[in-house]
Amino acid sequence: MGSRFGFMLHRTNNEVTFLDNWAEHVANINRRGLLVEENELETYYPIPAMQPDKVKGDFDLVLLFTKAMQIDDMLKQIKPILTENTKVLVLSNGLGNIEMIEQYVSADQIYAGVTLWSSELEGPGHIKVTGSGTIELQPIGTDDETFTTELMSMLNTAGLNAILSSDVLLSIWKKAAFNAVMNTYCALLDCNVGQYGQMQNPMTLAQLVVSEFVAVANAQQIPLTETMVLNTVESVFDPTQSGDHYPSMHQDLQKRRQTEIDYINGAVARIGKSLGIATPVNHLLCELVHAKEDVLGINEKVPSLV
Amino acid sequence: MGSRFGFMLHRTNNEVTFLDNWAEHVANINRRGLLVEENELETYYPIPAMQPDKVKGDFDLVLLFTKAMQIDDMLKQIKPILTENTKVLVLSNGLGNIEMIEQYVSADQIYAGVTLWSSELEGPGHIKVTGSGTIELQPIGTDDETFTTELMSMLNTAGLNAILSSDVLLSIWKKAAFNAVMNTYCALLDCNVGQYGQMQNPMTLAQLVVSEFVAVANAQQIPLTETMVLNTVESVFDPTQSGDHYPSMHQDLQKRRQTEIDYINGAVARIGKSLGIATPVNHLLCELVHAKEDVLGINEKVPSLV
Repeated sequence: MGSRFGFMLHRTNNEVTFLDNWAEHVANINRRGLLVEENELETYYPIPAMQPDKVKGDFDLVLLFTKAMQIDDMLKQIKPILTENTKVLVLSNGLGNIEMIEQYVSADQIYAGVTLWSSELEGPGHIKVTGSGTIELQPIGTDDETFTTELMSMLNTAGLNAILSSDVLLSIWKKAAFNAVMNTYCALLDCNVGQYGQMQNPMTLAQLVVSEFVAVANAQQIPLTETMVLNTVESVFDPTQSGDHYPSMHQDLQKRRQTEIDYINGAVARIGKSLGIATPVNHLLCELVHAKEDVLGINEKVPSLV
Repeated sequence: MGSRFGFMLHRTNNEVTFLDNWAEHVANINRRGLLVEENELETYYPIPAMQPDKVKGDFDLVLLFTKAMQIDDMLKQIKPILTENTKVLVLSNGLGNIEMIEQYVSADQIYAGVTLWSSELEGPGHIKVTGSGTIELQPIGTDDETFTTELMSMLNTAGLNAILSSDVLLSIWKKAAFNAVMNTYCALLDCNVGQYGQMQNPMTLAQLVVSEFVAVANAQQIPLTETMVLNTVESVFDPTQSGDHYPSMHQDLQKRRQTEIDYINGAVARIGKSLGIATPVNHLLCELVHAKEDVLGINEKVPSLV
């Protein structure tokens, strides 16, 4: 995802630097440029790339696509460039990202959001992109209007279809609740979205998860409803749409990668506990996915591939 | 299991008839006897076998090993032989078996229990037996002492190591709670007992299940404790013991057979609901195993193989 946003911003004349811990990815990008397959065309984009702990200089914006469980490590590595003039835009999935970033910069420097853009990593220094997407984002602290205007203009000039949201936390929770159903169940049951939809009671399982998300969100004044999430869940079952799609957590287990479960079902269980709200379903699902990771021998953090 | 008990009772001079819905099994037993492999020896036992709906005559005892979800069908089929003089001994796993049998005969005719005997079905009319076992049983209604004495004598003459229990419901619940942990998690996580024990938090997952069993059992004056079950769970992890064992529910899913989940985790959720006791963990696990059955295309009841 970072590569996709990076080349789109680069080709509209922004100065872009890629930061990634995957050495081979960084090496390939520096040697021959980022290879992007798009509409049967292959293009090489000459964009500098480096390990995060090597970065120096002044940056107006850090665009974070790091997986939730690696955000803390990533911010530690890039701490030298996080001055009081640096803004951070986080579009990674999961709950708790903003709170994590607030340990490194002030809320006034943070923009958070969700995106429907996608990207496929074909290999080190090589992505394939299809379709289009949107971004919904919001400043988390006091709005620096001048910067926000520049940011929106930059993203939209690059064709990234960004809109300013007035309730981005609702969007983040809605997406997390959707993922807590679709990602988690497809991973545990080893099925794709279409097979999940064809089960006898897919909405019963979904509702068990979502009702706990709603209780925890509402206790924090986030106006999530069951209908919002369940309608989206039901809409993806259509086999002519995304039916043959295996959600990312399923792919994580297949490829023996640590999942983001702690930042999806696990996060709502953790926040629920701190607020005194029972979340037995999400707690159990979090434990079950970790158990599955154990059975598959996934014990250590692996470097982020995206 | 019926075959194992049957040949042991037959060879100590009891009149035994096998009842089973598997036509090939019945045919093979009638053609050449029940083939039993035991200590490298093969023995053929000439014991009559028939489809349950064909049975006629007077029977002192019906020994039920039918899987929980097939008990109702089986009792319907053998209704003609269930007179007021027929006792029924049920040693099948699961909760709710006694209540089911009470719809066909009075409580005074029922003996219930648990057993540690095992048996492997090698093919139609062919079992392999190893090791030894025990039976713990108790009359459910008013004790017919003459019959109970005869029953215990018959079982022990056959070497079946039966003892009379004064709290068989506790034993049944203890075994069901154990199976609700080991069977269900190994089935869902696709692992054996040893792999389960080597996970990072096997006892956390176990405790989530068992605490609900204890609450529901205690509300019914059954003195189950968490320690009773968790100690047994922990004792089977030893890889030199049963570590490479895949519990029967795992085998059910592998062989695309319907599981007994409704009579294990599902039963405690159902009873909990009727008593107003929350059982979210067992409810979710029951739904998840049914979801897995759906994903695997297990939709209809199949004839019992054992």
